[in-house]
Amino acid sequence: MTDIDAADTQTDNAWLSADELALARSRMPIVYVDAVPVRVDGMGNVEEVGMLLRQGAGGSISRMVVTGRVLYGERVREALMRHCEKDLGPMALPRVPANPTPFTVAEYFPDPAVSGFHDPRHHAVSLAYVVPVDGECEPTQEALDLHWFTPEEAVSDDVVLEMTSGHDRLIRLALAHVGKLP
Amino acid sequence: MTDIDAADTQTDNAWLSADELALARSRMPIVYVDAVPVRVDGMGNVEEVGMLLRQGAGGSISRMVVTGRVLYGERVREALMRHCEKDLGPMALPRVPANPTPFTVAEYFPDPAVSGFHDPRHHAVSLAYVVPVDGECEPTQEALDLHWFTPEEAVSDDVVLEMTSGHDRLIRLALAHVGKLP
Amino acid sequence: MTDIDAADTQTDNAWLSADELALARSRMPIVYVDAVPVRVDGMGNVEEVGMLLRQGAGGSISRMVVTGRVLYGERVREALMRHCEKDLGPMALPRVPANPTPFTVAEYFPDPAVSGFHDPRHHAVSLAYVVPVDGECEPTQEALDLHWFTPEEAVSDDVVLEMTSGHDRLIRLALAHVGKLP
Amino acid sequence: MTDIDAADTQTDNAWLSADELALARSRMPIVYVDAVPVRVDGMGNVEEVGMLLRQGAGGSISRMVVTGRVLYGERVREALMRHCEKDLGPMALPRVPANPTPFTVAEYFPDPAVSGFHDPRHHAVSLAYVVPVDGECEPTQEALDLHWFTPEEAVSDDVVLEMTSGHDRLIRLALAHVGKLP
Repeated sequence: MTDIDAADTQTDNAWLSADELALARSRMPIVYVDAVPVRVDGMGNVEEVGMLLRQGAGGSISRMVVTGRVLYGERVREALMRHCEKDLGPMALPRVPANPTPFTVAEYFPDPAVSGFHDPRHHAVSLAYVVPVDGECEPTQEALDLHWFTPEEAVSDDVVLEMTSGHDRLIRLALAHVGKLP
Repeated sequence: MTDIDAADTQTDNAWLSADELALARSRMPIVYVDAVPVRVDGMGNVEEVGMLLRQGAGGSISRMVVTGRVLYGERVREALMRHCEKDLGPMALPRVPANPTPFTVAEYFPDPAVSGFHDPRHHAVSLAYVVPVDGECEPTQEALDLHWFTPEEAVSDDVVLEMTSGHDRLIRLALAHVGKLP
Repeated sequence: MTDIDAADTQTDNAWLSADELALARSRMPIVYVDAVPVRVDGMGNVEEVGMLLRQGAGGSISRMVVTGRVLYGERVREALMRHCEKDLGPMALPRVPANPTPFTVAEYFPDPAVSGFHDPRHHAVSLAYVVPVDGECEPTQEALDLHWFTPEEAVSDDVVLEMTSGHDRLIRLALAHVGKLP
Repeated sequence: MTDIDAADTQTDNAWLSADELALARSRMPIVYVDAVPVRVDGMGNVEEVGMLLRQGAGGSISRMVVTGRVLYGERVREALMRHCEKDLGPMALPRVPANPTPFTVAEYFPDPAVSGFHDPRHHAVSLAYVVPVDGECEPTQEALDLHWFTPEEAVSDDVVLEMTSGHDRLIRLALAHVGKLP
C-alpha cells in the first residue's frame, strides 16, 4: 500500500471502505486535485516551485506536487486546502486562488500512453492549481523532503529525471500559466 | 428513472452496473461535463445560447444545458463530444475548445444550499465549457425541444424561471466568460 | 480636469507631456489596467468587493474600481500595484495574481454603444484583474470613500445605479470569474 | 523599414502619421495582438502550429507568429481577424475564440532583459491568442513562407533557433495553454 492509499484510508473511513474504493477505482474516474506550491514576490511573480520527495503511486521515490482525492460532500477548495495542509504542514498558509478554474485538467490513466499523465491505480481527473504559500512548510506524513526550485531548476533535466506520472509536464504547464516557463 | 439515468444505463453497461453506480454516487463525487452550446458570428462573438427543454434530475421539465458523466477510460474531450452529439444530434458539429480548462467548475450537491448547484442524485464535480456549434441541431433522446436565446433573453426572468439545478447561474457564468453577460 | 488626468499628469511628467498624451489619446488605444479589490476568506472565497466613490472620467461622482494607465517601460504587474497603492493606500497589501492573464479585457470607447465600456476621453484596452487585499485600505487622492459590498449588494440595483462607464458590468464579470455571481 | 512598419503605415494612414507613430512608440506602450495559428482535430486537439517565415522587428529573417497593432476604434477581435487575414490569406478561415481573455499577456520591451519578449522598436503589450484555422493558408505580404509544425517540432532546438523576440517562448506558452506542451 502506498502512502497515498494510506492517507486515503485514514481520512476516508466515514466515506468509502477500502473495498469500495478499489471497486470504484476500477470502474469510474476519480476526482482529484493537484496543487503546485509556489513562492511569489511582492508583485505576484513566481520565484520558486515546491516539490515533495515521496513514494509515488507506482512505489518508487520521486519528486511530486501535492495531490489527492476530493471526498464526497467536500468542496474542491476544501480538498485543496486539506491536501496542502496534509503535505506542507499546518504553518504553510496556502493561498487557494479566488478563481475556481484550474490552470489545466490533468487526466491520469493506468495506461501511460493515453494522455502523458499516468497513475497505475486508476483513472483520475485532476483539477490542477498553482497555490502560493507564504508560511513555513514542513513535509508531513510519508513525504521525505520538500525542496524549492527556481523555474529554471524545476524544468532542468536533473529534476525532470526525478519525476514520474507526468508531474514534470504538470510543472511546465504551471510555469507557463504564470508566465514563468523558461 | 430520469432521462439522464436512462442514458447512463444505456451507455455504460460495459462500465458500471446500476447498483454499482448507485453505490458510487452515494460515496464519492462523480466527474461530469457541462456544455453550454452557443452560436458565434464570424468574429467569435457569442450571439445565441442554446438550451434544452427536458426532464431534469429532479423530475420536472426545465431548460438545461448539455450535461453528463465522464466514463472510465474516457477523455474529458471525448465525453464533451459524446454528450453534445447525444443531446444536439449528429449534425450539430460542436467545436470543443482547444484549451482543456473549463470556464468554471460547477459543484453539484444533493443539498442545494452548499454551492447553489444542485443535483438530488449525487455529488458531481462538473467541468463546464462553452461549445460553439456550427451545424444543424436537433434534440435527441428525451429532450423535448432545443431553443436558442440571445444573451439578454437567456438571463431574463422568464427563462431563468424555467431553469433548475443552478443552470441559470451556469448560463450567466458562461456569458461572463465570453464577455457577453448583459 | 478629472482626478484621473491629475494623477496621470503628476505621475507621468517624465514620460509624456499633457499635449502628447492628448494627441496619443485621440489617435491610438491606450493600455490600461482595472483592478477589482476583494476580501477573501481563508479558503479563497470572495466575500466582499471594494468600490471607490470618486469623480469618474465623465465628471460625475460614481462607484468605480481601481483603474489607470500602464506607463512606458512599466510591467503590467507594476502598474497594477501602483494603481492599487495609489487608490487604496500604502497599507492595503494587494495580492496581484501569479497568473498574468486578466479575467477579461475591457475595451473602453468614447462611443458608449461600441462595447458597453465607456470613456469619453479615449479608446482604452484595459486588462482587468481581481486583486485580493489583506490589509487596511484607506482611499487616497481624490477618492471620497471606499466601501465594501457583498456579492449580492455589489450587483444590486442600488449600487449599479451609482456606477458608470460599464463598471457595473465589470463587477459582474469579476464575480462570475471567481464563481460568486449571484 | 521592416515589413511590419510597412504594413502599419499602409493600413493606418487615417489614424496616425509615421511621425506620430514614432513619437507614440517612444513614449507609451502600444496595444498589440499575437495570434498562434493552429490546426485542430475534430475533438479540438491541437495537432499543428503554424509559423511564418518573415523579416522580424530586428530585420533578420525568423519564424514568427501572427502579430500586429490594435488600431484606434478597433475591437481586439477585429484586430485579430485583420492580422490573421493579412498574414494567412483570405481563405484561412481563422476562428477567433469566443472568450476574449488572452492565454498570456506578452510584454515586449526594447531591452530584451526585462521580460524575455523583445521588440527593438517599442514597448508593446500584446494580447496573445491561439487561433484555430480551418481553411487554406497562403502567406501574404512580406511573409516568405508559412509552415506547420507538430508540437514536438515546434519546441525543438532547430525551430527555436530560427525564432527571435521571445516567440519561441510564446509558442511554448500557447502549447501549454492547450495542454500540448511536450
